[in-house]
Amino acid sequence: MRTVEWDAQAVGVRLIDQRLLPNQIEYPVYTDYAAVGRAITDMVVRGAPAIGATAAYGLALAGFQSRAGDVVNLRRDVQQAADVLRAARPTAVNLGWALDRLLRVAAQDSYAAADDLRQALLAEAQTLADEDVALNRRMGFNGAALVQDGDTIIHHCNTGALAAVDFGTALGVIFAAHEQGKEIHVLVDETRPRLQGARLTAWELEQKGISFELIADNAAGFFLKRGEAQLCLVGADRVTANGDVANKIGTYPLAVVARENGVPFYSVVPTSTIDLSLAHGDLIPIERRDPHEVLGLEFAGQPVAPAGARQHGRARNPAFDVTPARYLTGIITENGVARPPYTLSLARAVAGTL
Amino acid sequence: MRTVEWDAQAVGVRLIDQRLLPNQIEYPVYTDYAAVGRAITDMVVRGAPAIGATAAYGLALAGFQSRAGDVVNLRRDVQQAADVLRAARPTAVNLGWALDRLLRVAAQDSYAAADDLRQALLAEAQTLADEDVALNRRMGFNGAALVQDGDTIIHHCNTGALAAVDFGTALGVIFAAHEQGKEIHVLVDETRPRLQGARLTAWELEQKGISFELIADNAAGFFLKRGEAQLCLVGADRVTANGDVANKIGTYPLAVVARENGVPFYSVVPTSTIDLSLAHGDLIPIERRDPHEVLGLEFAGQPVAPAGARQHGRARNPAFDVTPARYLTGIITENGVARPPYTLSLARAVAGTL
Repeated sequence: MRTVEWDAQAVGVRLIDQRLLPNQIEYPVYTDYAAVGRAITDMVVRGAPAIGATAAYGLALAGFQSRAGDVVNLRRDVQQAADVLRAARPTAVNLGWALDRLLRVAAQDSYAAADDLRQALLAEAQTLADEDVALNRRMGFNGAALVQDGDTIIHHCNTGALAAVDFGTALGVIFAAHEQGKEIHVLVDETRPRLQGARLTAWELEQKGISFELIADNAAGFFLKRGEAQLCLVGADRVTANGDVANKIGTYPLAVVARENGVPFYSVVPTSTIDLSLAHGDLIPIERRDPHEVLGLEFAGQPVAPAGARQHGRARNPAFDVTPARYLTGIITENGVARPPYTLSLARAVAGTL
Repeated sequence: MRTVEWDAQAVGVRLIDQRLLPNQIEYPVYTDYAAVGRAITDMVVRGAPAIGATAAYGLALAGFQSRAGDVVNLRRDVQQAADVLRAARPTAVNLGWALDRLLRVAAQDSYAAADDLRQALLAEAQTLADEDVALNRRMGFNGAALVQDGDTIIHHCNTGALAAVDFGTALGVIFAAHEQGKEIHVLVDETRPRLQGARLTAWELEQKGISFELIADNAAGFFLKRGEAQLCLVGADRVTANGDVANKIGTYPLAVVARENGVPFYSVVPTSTIDLSLAHGDLIPIERRDPHEVLGLEFAGQPVAPAGARQHGRARNPAFDVTPARYLTGIITENGVARPPYTLSLARAVAGTL
């Protein structure tokens, strides 16, 4: 089962509810595109490539929801739905990228009837999702060449099958290296505040039988300094033209400490995550999420933060940080590994001429 | 009420059970020195100065528990109890420092009867605890001079009244700056895995009416990079002769990222935390705690880590890391602020000639 799929019978988008993992496995089906947008906002589905595919299916769904009887009116309804979906989360560029790709299909001149456009949108969403899986495998293969037998790898957040349509980005590299028979061990950052590492990455590694240990995010530096990790792999939500990487909060300090200790640090992304329209990372919109994601933590059934802090929302919760390109060893894409200078190599990666 | 006190009526050591804060406030009284040792191991009490005072009271308690009728036999029982207490936790040097201080009292030649030695041990423990409060206030005053009106300060772990007998070390600096009328704001690292920041530091700041916000440990780098924090303050569990600092896990990456962004980073310690007998930080024993401290996390009443990881203890949990001296701007003590070269300045701080 993929992270996101089209349900033809229900005429809707089927997701796996990642908020309930690893304790419960539920596959809600959304038959309203606005609800798909809310599912993205609420992180039922998360991970840049998965968000992109979900938005694409959501826009196809909007086409089927529209009562427009002609192409012009359907196109207008789809455009309005795209605006709603685009606002679901700000940082991952794949969301807008996927919507724009479907809107280009909608803009074509070739539809005799509204239903033709509806089918064309769904076909494009399906293609996008299928391509995502194929790209992930190529990224995994490209990255696995950089993994040595015996490596211990530090991984942040979740970048596996759950973060994409299937397979994954940074975790896809780990899966590919494992498939090649390399003995690897993963130190899994638990990734506060939403604990995607503890919940999702540990679960995916467990299912694949790959050796891992969970660590508090605070402990990654300890292992880097002692030479107990040979490689860091992360995904990305947006990479700018100069190689700056927006990714899950905590990526930046991990990259700084990795460089300080001479440990290679790679971001693994499909080229759809590369945003050549932005010159550098300070231009990336950074999502600030609800402070209660930090304050809501419990231990042994008791809240952790004091009552006043919880009552007054005394927490700050930036969901992403930006790692300047100078901390990266390279950026692994489906078209090869981009290395400095990134303005050149990323443009080539996107063009497929790396 | 102090974090640790002697209960004359019960003949025992009264602690505040920090594992239950901020939800419950309980003051268990320990009438067996071995139970005091277990309370240190289990982190009923934590924080280097608090551990030192607790061990001192624990050793005085051992004197009262001993049935020895003469000084020689009492001295032998006390020595055995000191060995038990010393093994409670390995990293904070204050534990051994406090025990050695009481053992020097025990070694004196001046006791006519065993009860005289018992009273002398208790008096020394009381003195040590009272001195701790006084030293903390001096540290706070010395450090407050480095805090500017309007500063936002990043703080890791808990170093307040709860980490000492009263007042605190790094948090004591914040309390002192607040008492001086400086407008300050504290970004409180929640400090996984045991969440001393979220549980204890937030609670202490709330009680004092000092402005703060809780952040995931992962977010500290985000605020440092954006210039939204002007100062980092931490405590320490052991400082070596060259200025290397063992402190709560996560201190090292925070220090690296602070230096990378030109933000001053100070460790605040009583000179009893400075271990001139160790040349550098690699010689400090680092405690590894139960992996279930990482794996036991719950959210909304559900475990976070997958069942297999919990069942097989698949986590690593170093409790401390070592920050090399080069990342520190200075070390604030009750005798002044030590600055590089630390081999010179720390020796002077300990001698009281800084």
